[in-house]
Amino acid sequence: MKRVGVVDTTFARVDMGAIAVRALEATTSHLKVLRRTVPGIKDLPVAARRLFAEGMDLVMALGMPGRAEYDRVCAHEASQGLMHVGILESRPVIEVFVFEGEASSPRELAFLARRRTEEHAENAYLMLFHPERLTERAGLGLRQGFPDAGPVG
Amino acid sequence: MKRVGVVDTTFARVDMGAIAVRALEATTSHLKVLRRTVPGIKDLPVAARRLFAEGMDLVMALGMPGRAEYDRVCAHEASQGLMHVGILESRPVIEVFVFEGEASSPRELAFLARRRTEEHAENAYLMLFHPERLTERAGLGLRQGFPDAGPVG
Amino acid sequence: MKRVGVVDTTFARVDMGAIAVRALEATTSHLKVLRRTVPGIKDLPVAARRLFAEGMDLVMALGMPGRAEYDRVCAHEASQGLMHVGILESRPVIEVFVFEGEASSPRELAFLARRRTEEHAENAYLMLFHPERLTERAGLGLRQGFPDAGPVG
Amino acid sequence: MKRVGVVDTTFARVDMGAIAVRALEATTSHLKVLRRTVPGIKDLPVAARRLFAEGMDLVMALGMPGRAEYDRVCAHEASQGLMHVGILESRPVIEVFVFEGEASSPRELAFLARRRTEEHAENAYLMLFHPERLTERAGLGLRQGFPDAGPVG
Amino acid sequence: MKRVGVVDTTFARVDMGAIAVRALEATTSHLKVLRRTVPGIKDLPVAARRLFAEGMDLVMALGMPGRAEYDRVCAHEASQGLMHVGILESRPVIEVFVFEGEASSPRELAFLARRRTEEHAENAYLMLFHPERLTERAGLGLRQGFPDAGPVG
Repeated sequence: MKRVGVVDTTFARVDMGAIAVRALEATTSHLKVLRRTVPGIKDLPVAARRLFAEGMDLVMALGMPGRAEYDRVCAHEASQGLMHVGILESRPVIEVFVFEGEASSPRELAFLARRRTEEHAENAYLMLFHPERLTERAGLGLRQGFPDAGPVG
Repeated sequence: MKRVGVVDTTFARVDMGAIAVRALEATTSHLKVLRRTVPGIKDLPVAARRLFAEGMDLVMALGMPGRAEYDRVCAHEASQGLMHVGILESRPVIEVFVFEGEASSPRELAFLARRRTEEHAENAYLMLFHPERLTERAGLGLRQGFPDAGPVG
Repeated sequence: MKRVGVVDTTFARVDMGAIAVRALEATTSHLKVLRRTVPGIKDLPVAARRLFAEGMDLVMALGMPGRAEYDRVCAHEASQGLMHVGILESRPVIEVFVFEGEASSPRELAFLARRRTEEHAENAYLMLFHPERLTERAGLGLRQGFPDAGPVG
Repeated sequence: MKRVGVVDTTFARVDMGAIAVRALEATTSHLKVLRRTVPGIKDLPVAARRLFAEGMDLVMALGMPGRAEYDRVCAHEASQGLMHVGILESRPVIEVFVFEGEASSPRELAFLARRRTEEHAENAYLMLFHPERLTERAGLGLRQGFPDAGPVG
Repeated sequence: MKRVGVVDTTFARVDMGAIAVRALEATTSHLKVLRRTVPGIKDLPVAARRLFAEGMDLVMALGMPGRAEYDRVCAHEASQGLMHVGILESRPVIEVFVFEGEASSPRELAFLARRRTEEHAENAYLMLFHPERLTERAGLGLRQGFPDAGPVG
C-alpha cells in the first residue's frame, strides 16, 4: 500500500483536489489518498511537508495562479518552496499548476485543470508503482493538459 | 488552546497588527495571540521563527510594500524567507502583504489592509480549528481583500 | 549587556561601519559592539554568521550597491544570504543598504548613508531593549534615511 | 568502481538518458550507471537526491525546457534545486539542459541534445577519474554542444 | 599556516586558477593553496564545499560567464550556490566572476580577468591574516579589476 497526499487551494477556481483524489483512486486499489486544502499556493509547501510527516510517499500540490505579474511571482515562490520540501524529504512532490492565462475561456480553464490534474495523477501512479514505464517513455515529449509535443530525431 | 503569533511592521501605513489581533480574538476564545512588531518586511522571517520558538501553532506576517520596483524585490525576498521559516518549522505562516500600488487612494489602502487582514485571520482560524471547512471551499476562487473570483466549470 | 555585530565593506563609498558603531554606542551603555569589514556585499552573510558565532544578539550588515543592473542582482543575492543567516541563527540581521542610484550627488549619498545607518541603529536598539516601543509605532509608515510616509486611514 | 546516476524526463523530445548511459559506459569499464526517468525537469532534484541515497558518486540530470518564458522560469527553479542537492550531498550534479529555443530545427535539436549530453558525460568521467586533466584544460573556453570559444590572451 | 582553496572552470577563456594560485602564493609563505577545476560555474559550489571538507579556511571561486541572457541566469544561480556554501560552512567564499560583456576586446578581457583575480587574492590574504586592514579601508569605494570609485563626503 502506497500513500499519496493531495493538497489544493480555495483560491483555485476549479476543485482540483477532488479531481486528483478521484484520478488517483482510479489507478489502483493499492494506494491510499489523504487530502488537505489551504487558502493559496504559498501555503502549499508547509502543507506538503506536514503530509509527508503523516507518512505520505508522494504529494500532489495543486494550484491555479491568476493572470497578474504578481501571481507569477507568487507561483515562482511556491514552486521553489515545494521543491525545497521535496529535497528535504527526499520524496516526490508533483506540482500541478494551471495558470488562468493559459486558457481563453472559463470552459477551457476547467477542461485544462481537469486534464492536467488527471495526467499528473497518472504520473504519480507510475512513479510509485511502475517507474520503469517512465523510462520507456523518456524523450517522447509528453505534456500534461496539452497535446504531447512528441519526439524529434 | 491554540497559539497564534502576529508580527507586523513600523514601515506599514496601517496598524495591521492591531487589526489582526482583534480579528483573531473575535473568532474563538480557544486561541491566544502573541504580537511582535519589527521595522520592515525583511525582518518578518526571523521574527516569525522566534515566535515559533515561543510555541506558536501558526504565525501571521503582515506587511505593506511600497510602490517602487525595489519594494517588489524586497517583498519577494521577504516572501521567500517566510516560506523558508514555515518549511523549517513545519507550521503555517500566513503572509498578508498589501502593496501600496494595489490601492488608488489612502482611504482605499486602509480599507484593503483591514479587509485582507481580517479575511486572512479567518483563514488562520479555519486552518487551526476547522481544516475540513477549507476543503469544502476548495476551488471556489476565494480572494482576500478583493471580491472572490468564484468557481468556473 | 547586549552584543551587536557590525559588518561593512570596502566597496562602500562611505564608512558606514564607523557611523553604525558610533550610533549604536550612543544609544545605551548596556550594549557592546564588535565590528568587521569585508570587501563587498556578497561577503556580508558569512561575516554575519561568524559574528553570531562570537555571541552577537543582533548584526547590522551595511553596504552600498552601485548603479548598474548587475549591482542590483548582487544586492538581491546578498539580501537573500543575510536573510538565510538570520533564519538559521534565529537572531535579527538588520540590512542597511544604500544604493548609489538613490542619491543625485556625492553629498546627498553621504548624507543618506549616515542618516539611514543612524536610524537603523536606533531600530537595533529598540529591537534589543524596547520591542514594545516598536509595537507602539506599528503602521506609522516609518522610513530610514528618507522622510516618513506616515499613516493612512 | 565509481557509480553514476542518470536521470532524465518524459518531457524531453530526445531520449537524453539513453545517450548519457551509452556515453558514460563507453568511457571506462570502472563505472556503473543507474538510470531513472521522471516526468519533468522540476522532478529532477528529488530524483537526483534519491540516486545519491543509493550510493551514486555523481549524478547527471538531463532535461529539455521548452520555448516559452514560463519554461525558462521552470528551468531556473530546477537548476536551483539541482544545485541545492549537490551542496547538501557534497557530490557533483552535472546539469545537462538543452533549450528548444537553442535549435532552429528538430534535426538540429536532436544533434545538439546528443552532442551536449556526450560532452557532459566526458566531463563526468574526468571529474571522477582524472580531475587533473580538467585543470590542464582550465581557461580554454570549452563549450558542450557548441564549438569551443577558445582561450584569450 | 592557512589553507586556501582555488576552483576555476574549463569554460573560462583565461586560466584564472593559475593566476589566483600565483597571486596567493606571492602574498605570504604562511599560506597553502589547493586547486581544483570544474567544467562550468554551476559546478563551483559543490567543488567549493568539497574543498572546505579538505580543510580550507577560505575558497576562491573563479568563473567567466558569457554574454547571453542565459549566462546571466547561470551566474546568478552559481552565486547563490556559492553563498549557500559559505553560509553552511561559516567560512568565506570569494567569488571572482568576470563577465565577457564587461570587456570590449579579448585583450581587455584577459587584462580584466588577471587584475580582478589578483586583487581578490589580495583580499583573501587580508581576510585571513590582517582583517583589521580591511576595516582601515572601509568605505573607500574600492573596486577589483576596475579603478576604485573612491570615498564620498
